[in-house]
Amino acid sequence: MLIVQKFGGTSVGTTDRIKNVARRVAQARAEGNDVVVVVSAMSGETDRLIGLAHQISPLPDQREMDMLISTGERVTIALLAIALQESGVAARSFTGRQVGILTDAVHTNARIEQITAERLKESLAEGVVPVVAGFQGINQRSDVTTLGRGGSDTTAVALAAALKADLCDIYTDVDGVYTTDPNIVPNARKLSKISYEEMLEMASLGAKVLQTRSVEFAMKYQVPVRVRSSFNDHEGTLVTKEDLEMEQEVVSGVTYDKNQAKVTLLGVPDRPGIASKIFGTLARENVVVDMIIQNVSQGGMTDISFTVPKGDARRAKETLSKLAEEMGVQDIQLTENIAKVSIVGVGMRSHSGVAAKMFSSLAAEGINIMMISTSEIKISCVIDSKYTELAVRTLHDVFELSKTPPQKSEKGKAKTARRASK
Amino acid sequence: MLIVQKFGGTSVGTTDRIKNVARRVAQARAEGNDVVVVVSAMSGETDRLIGLAHQISPLPDQREMDMLISTGERVTIALLAIALQESGVAARSFTGRQVGILTDAVHTNARIEQITAERLKESLAEGVVPVVAGFQGINQRSDVTTLGRGGSDTTAVALAAALKADLCDIYTDVDGVYTTDPNIVPNARKLSKISYEEMLEMASLGAKVLQTRSVEFAMKYQVPVRVRSSFNDHEGTLVTKEDLEMEQEVVSGVTYDKNQAKVTLLGVPDRPGIASKIFGTLARENVVVDMIIQNVSQGGMTDISFTVPKGDARRAKETLSKLAEEMGVQDIQLTENIAKVSIVGVGMRSHSGVAAKMFSSLAAEGINIMMISTSEIKISCVIDSKYTELAVRTLHDVFELSKTPPQKSEKGKAKTARRASK
Repeated sequence: MLIVQKFGGTSVGTTDRIKNVARRVAQARAEGNDVVVVVSAMSGETDRLIGLAHQISPLPDQREMDMLISTGERVTIALLAIALQESGVAARSFTGRQVGILTDAVHTNARIEQITAERLKESLAEGVVPVVAGFQGINQRSDVTTLGRGGSDTTAVALAAALKADLCDIYTDVDGVYTTDPNIVPNARKLSKISYEEMLEMASLGAKVLQTRSVEFAMKYQVPVRVRSSFNDHEGTLVTKEDLEMEQEVVSGVTYDKNQAKVTLLGVPDRPGIASKIFGTLARENVVVDMIIQNVSQGGMTDISFTVPKGDARRAKETLSKLAEEMGVQDIQLTENIAKVSIVGVGMRSHSGVAAKMFSSLAAEGINIMMISTSEIKISCVIDSKYTELAVRTLHDVFELSKTPPQKSEKGKAKTARRASK
Repeated sequence: MLIVQKFGGTSVGTTDRIKNVARRVAQARAEGNDVVVVVSAMSGETDRLIGLAHQISPLPDQREMDMLISTGERVTIALLAIALQESGVAARSFTGRQVGILTDAVHTNARIEQITAERLKESLAEGVVPVVAGFQGINQRSDVTTLGRGGSDTTAVALAAALKADLCDIYTDVDGVYTTDPNIVPNARKLSKISYEEMLEMASLGAKVLQTRSVEFAMKYQVPVRVRSSFNDHEGTLVTKEDLEMEQEVVSGVTYDKNQAKVTLLGVPDRPGIASKIFGTLARENVVVDMIIQNVSQGGMTDISFTVPKGDARRAKETLSKLAEEMGVQDIQLTENIAKVSIVGVGMRSHSGVAAKMFSSLAAEGINIMMISTSEIKISCVIDSKYTELAVRTLHDVFELSKTPPQKSEKGKAKTARRASK
């Protein structure tokens, strides 16, 4: 098997932990696998570097930030290659550039456009374990770019896709993907399998196990991804395409996101083209708008609310203030103490009444729902952030997520196997 | 003027010092110069990285060491580019690779083979100050290489040569090149000018102001190099080609090197080919031999002594032990407490009796000379290391190095100028 193994910052946080990672890689090799390793910066390193830059400038240039923070992963690849060699495994470190990870030009948040992976194939053919710097690539100008927080996940999955690897193991400091945050719900249950679609929703909705873009890559190229801990040998969670064997819960997980703010425009003249003006202006400023609601018009006037990432909220308000004046908007309000609570599950497609159950159970706890947004496999509600934990616990309970669901087809398979052995 | 400014590790040791460097670069720009900046890693950073590697392996792979330690300079270039931008100077960071510094394949001690400098020229043409990572390049395989301790000096001089710069300023933590180490001789005098040849000898002989290879480059391409402090505005020392204006001392400086060890082979059969066997064997092991003496043969036997860098001494002894047995050598002795004390000066060419004066003044202090080596412009003596400071002070005194020498042609020039102004 060809396996891509990715180790996050905490897994390589000290030289002892790097030695531990080397043992794990050596083991996978000893079991007869070909292995490509992708690593993040040692935990704390990226923040240390960002801190240095901020001692010099409050708003440092993004190209220079990429030059700066991309050094973190380079340190780790060299140290891990040394650790592997020390434990008798032939290994060689490679930067993003050296394995041909070409990205667009958006510094600090670049997207991978192409991977040539030639030196990787060469290295594998020689029996040398390639140790690749995650999180980084180069643009057309040959300048270093980085892929945004959690970008090493994307590097790993993208390399797995480019090499047609059999599996991409994402080693992290948690045991896998849980039905919700175990810090809030102690009996949250680890999922053994989850579909790409569900994982994508959960990642977008605030579950921090995988970077959203890495899941998109995995889904697009059908790379089986396993999320597991680097500190034990538990089985982890397999992220894969939806199949009959998948656990058939209605809801697979509950997520929350406190990093949102709500902007409300009060007394907006209800004319055609107003919404396009508002959201066009925000788009040009690169403010990503998530949920939008517009009240029923009264006397030719309406209210429009939308949510944006908390870090962009003030900028969004300022950007709109001039436009609002021109349009005769009465007021712009900013609400920062909100949270988005969501339930996710492919089972929703075939079950009715899931939304009603969610709304009524929140209502029963006295939690007011400010905004609602739905997709085929998720329902999100914006609520007052002080109710976040209560809402998450309530939904986890109501949808019985701590119970292991029946795995019909697994049982069927087992029976068939037993029959075949007779 | 096009000036290459190089700042060493202590000059960029903290973010405050980096801001200070930015002010200095901004000033040179404001005076109408084009500037290319070359920087080292922040002081302590390279050692920190080497320390991490040694926590993992006593003898880490050299390719991986280059991947690891080359990150230090990348951090500095990004931070300095940010600092320059913050003070209103357009700036952009470049790695060794990005400015086309191609080296041979000798990891951790590579030599520059070619510099394309295209992005540098582009950047200068745009009015953007390029900030270049010193100490590093890439080899033919596009793997990162480093140029050895002090390699940033070589980067700076090599770039100055490639760009045909008018001047290469080496900013460091001392005021310039001194007649000897001021820690040993408090009245050591700063030289205002020194020839490439003398600087080359002094660098090779242990004066740590400039990397030897950088002086070779400067001499080969006739790049004027100025060594000066980044902490004040003193004039520094100009390293340039020998000319009539140069101070006409017999001796320009006294250097010492305690990083040497002496290996003696006792009772070597005095046959043709023996020396070639011994030193051929050492060369194949990459042990650099400095001085060699062979005693007068007695009864067909002789003793051979040579010096090597202290770090290679044990290896040299081990390498030779087998060969010595084959050849019937009686014993191999290793002496580590030696020092090489040297005097350097282009004036020696035209003055006789300099060597005799050196030997007799050492003898007058009771210092025994174990080995002697001379060139056209230097005389070196190996002595017991406990006498190092005494020998240096004695020679500095005897050759009157603390006195400012008469500068005949400078005076002549001044007169001419006065006349011309009448």
